[in-house]
Amino acid sequence: MFATFRQETAAGELARLRAAGPLVHLLTNEVVQEITANVLLAVGASPAMIVAEEEVEAFAALSGALLVNVGTLYPARLAAMRRAVAAANRAGVPWTLDPVAAGVLDYRTQACREFLHCGPAAIRGNASEILALAGNAGGGRGVDSTAGSTAAVEAAERLARATGAVVAVTGETDFITDGRTTWATPWGDPLMTRVVGTGCALSALVAAFTAGAPDRLGAVAAACAVAGLCGARAAAACRGPGSFKAAFLDALYALSPEELRGESV
Amino acid sequence: MFATFRQETAAGELARLRAAGPLVHLLTNEVVQEITANVLLAVGASPAMIVAEEEVEAFAALSGALLVNVGTLYPARLAAMRRAVAAANRAGVPWTLDPVAAGVLDYRTQACREFLHCGPAAIRGNASEILALAGNAGGGRGVDSTAGSTAAVEAAERLARATGAVVAVTGETDFITDGRTTWATPWGDPLMTRVVGTGCALSALVAAFTAGAPDRLGAVAAACAVAGLCGARAAAACRGPGSFKAAFLDALYALSPEELRGESV
Amino acid sequence: MFATFRQETAAGELARLRAAGPLVHLLTNEVVQEITANVLLAVGASPAMIVAEEEVEAFAALSGALLVNVGTLYPARLAAMRRAVAAANRAGVPWTLDPVAAGVLDYRTQACREFLHCGPAAIRGNASEILALAGNAGGGRGVDSTAGSTAAVEAAERLARATGAVVAVTGETDFITDGRTTWATPWGDPLMTRVVGTGCALSALVAAFTAGAPDRLGAVAAACAVAGLCGARAAAACRGPGSFKAAFLDALYALSPEELRGESV
Repeated sequence: MFATFRQETAAGELARLRAAGPLVHLLTNEVVQEITANVLLAVGASPAMIVAEEEVEAFAALSGALLVNVGTLYPARLAAMRRAVAAANRAGVPWTLDPVAAGVLDYRTQACREFLHCGPAAIRGNASEILALAGNAGGGRGVDSTAGSTAAVEAAERLARATGAVVAVTGETDFITDGRTTWATPWGDPLMTRVVGTGCALSALVAAFTAGAPDRLGAVAAACAVAGLCGARAAAACRGPGSFKAAFLDALYALSPEELRGESV
Repeated sequence: MFATFRQETAAGELARLRAAGPLVHLLTNEVVQEITANVLLAVGASPAMIVAEEEVEAFAALSGALLVNVGTLYPARLAAMRRAVAAANRAGVPWTLDPVAAGVLDYRTQACREFLHCGPAAIRGNASEILALAGNAGGGRGVDSTAGSTAAVEAAERLARATGAVVAVTGETDFITDGRTTWATPWGDPLMTRVVGTGCALSALVAAFTAGAPDRLGAVAAACAVAGLCGARAAAACRGPGSFKAAFLDALYALSPEELRGESV
Repeated sequence: MFATFRQETAAGELARLRAAGPLVHLLTNEVVQEITANVLLAVGASPAMIVAEEEVEAFAALSGALLVNVGTLYPARLAAMRRAVAAANRAGVPWTLDPVAAGVLDYRTQACREFLHCGPAAIRGNASEILALAGNAGGGRGVDSTAGSTAAVEAAERLARATGAVVAVTGETDFITDGRTTWATPWGDPLMTRVVGTGCALSALVAAFTAGAPDRLGAVAAACAVAGLCGARAAAACRGPGSFKAAFLDALYALSPEELRGESV
């Protein structure tokens, strides 16, 4: 039903990211900061977590992209996010929203709805989160989705048209849409759901790929493809979720555009 | 002196946990959040760190169990913990206390004493911490115990009777007591003390096993047995504390109830 | 131009650290807490992250050394750092400053300048950070240096003389100086820059080695030598930045003074 995103295009996007090595400002949740930074370093970007209200405006404006992840939201962090988003918008820096557990808890759901009106370049969430933001009753259980990604494609397309963002709804298959064109990236492995931060780190990858991207839809789809392909490789090479993490980072570091072009996975 | 907890019982508890996949609300310290989440994901539970005062009441009530760990306590976190504990109690959700470094620093010691009066389902600490909470001079050096676990068994039994909690005092051998029956779990490896968060993650496992547990003493002892057995396996399979962590998570993921029943470790 | 620090001296310092097992109070950034604690545990020190204003004074005074790292600075953390530094000074506890991204953002740069007047025992930074603190235009891009370490040796020597601290400027080669004598430690591997927290963890190692050190210059140089040698070993033994981390911790745990003495790397 949806065309599979071409690895050829992902290869070009990865080559662009590696050449640019973008500085990525991460306002992410407290749990996943280390793996998120390591994913970006492995792929070739330069992550920095600058969190104080005193510093976020200056740093967002200096960065190639910004990530806002509401996983451990509280008032001081929310205030910093608002300032960072405003500064990013003033400076023309694309920013990505990860609406962790939107629809489950009111405080973060309201915050996410507010951010939807601030022009995100990209939104990356699971099916429950995207359904909730698009106005459906999304369900969700803690930070996990209770719906499959396929069930949220239409909601993702609607959300993309309403916000102007490229929306990625991730799950067994990821769907990436700008509201007109929708790509599928079918790679990945269920083991990824047993390692905290793989979804949050994917949102950071999405942010990194949007930095200076001429084709934002392709950039976001490339992030999903790269994460999924490396996740599948790591799952094949590891003995469980503990060894998966190291193998995933090693795969992100080793992946080359040439390999992406020639590979038939 | 104390009977060894039976792996047969641990097997039944693990099967119950895997079938339920409980949502566990973690208010833990800032240092160990990633390993704690990964331990719960590896064993089959669903962890979530929801920390804002605005969200903890709703989330604690939704969860199967709650963990309160005072390792990096500060006023906003303490306020969130108080709300979460009250909400858990109203909703009948069992909650576990990890009194990190109680007895060493006044602020957290007072907070732990306050929590002792709020009906914890379980308490997991090292000997120094349990001695301090039971009213003995506990000692302790930073976050480490200066006493062996055997020295704290009587204090643990007293603390269990005074609070109604199942108390686990962990060390070379772990002792788990409800104040009447006391089990010993002799598994584990000293290498675990060279990896940050193994104790804190065990407290999260304890919380996960208490979710919906008909036999709370058996549930807490099963958490200690599972962690100790997997720790021993990981220590045998690794080359040091770095590779231990991945091996420990892989072991938790691979461990089956059937294996626990047949195994003579 | 600069003499290479002798492994013989590093061996003596490592033996001293292992025998003492110092308690190290870490006020570090939120991103790197786990790897920092694990590096100290692997090498034989006892780390503790105590962050509340209510607790830092008592704990800094109990500790063998203190680390102040401004990577994720915000007002509450800065207030705790000020209290901890004052308490450490009152108790004669040496403290180390890691001026992450000083020169890039005003808020932290001002905080670092303030701390320079409080008698740090050691300062560990990259070239851009040291240049910025010494009054040069440092450059820097996010948390990364835009200058090589050699370019900052003179600034490091000036900073050491002005503050009384031993200053380590780290990069491809590390330089360690008290303003009169300057050692070079040429070990390490570029892969270390692809793993978040290797620099921050080195600052924690520096702090650990300063605890009770009769020869502070030798102690700081030993920290740099140990990290560099273990980094080189880990890089040789791993398949990428993911497996590097475990190999690095394993190498720190396995390294012996005897090996350091006999080894020709």
